[in-house]
Amino acid sequence: MAKANVYVTLKPSLLDAQGKVVQGALENLGYDNVESVRMGKYIQLDIDDGNGRLEEDIDEMCRKLLSNPVIEDYRFEIVRDEEKPE
Amino acid sequence: MAKANVYVTLKPSLLDAQGKVVQGALENLGYDNVESVRMGKYIQLDIDDGNGRLEEDIDEMCRKLLSNPVIEDYRFEIVRDEEKPE
Repeated sequence: MAKANVYVTLKPSLLDAQGKVVQGALENLGYDNVESVRMGKYIQLDIDDGNGRLEEDIDEMCRKLLSNPVIEDYRFEIVRDEEKPE
Repeated sequence: MAKANVYVTLKPSLLDAQGKVVQGALENLGYDNVESVRMGKYIQLDIDDGNGRLEEDIDEMCRKLLSNPVIEDYRFEIVRDEEKPE
């Protein structure tokens, strides 16, 4: 078993409307030192690493389903069990 | 200026309905080795570190607005400009 952490973010050139709303709300709470807020997704996958092509699989999942490549960027990191002994 | 990366996740004891849907969709795409999917938020803040209490401020933002502490956990990391020279 391995864990994959996927980070999906809106492309930097695009306006992040949700982020703007959050920034405004933070300003209303008194945080006027926040210059920008960008909202993204953080997806945690538990995945069986049986077939030995985990990186390719996750990259494909990101392109096909987890992100919209037209407007979003993604990156991911894989944490295998043997790297993280209890 | 500093950057803060905030990760908001549903508490582990709670059912992640959105994650279940994504897991089902991945299965339909042929990825039957995905054991679990948890959907979270990844929030990037650009923030002016003038007042010297950045950690406390961001922790407070997380509790008050960025997460719902009843059902969500959060963690954050701060990347200050001097730690990341161009």
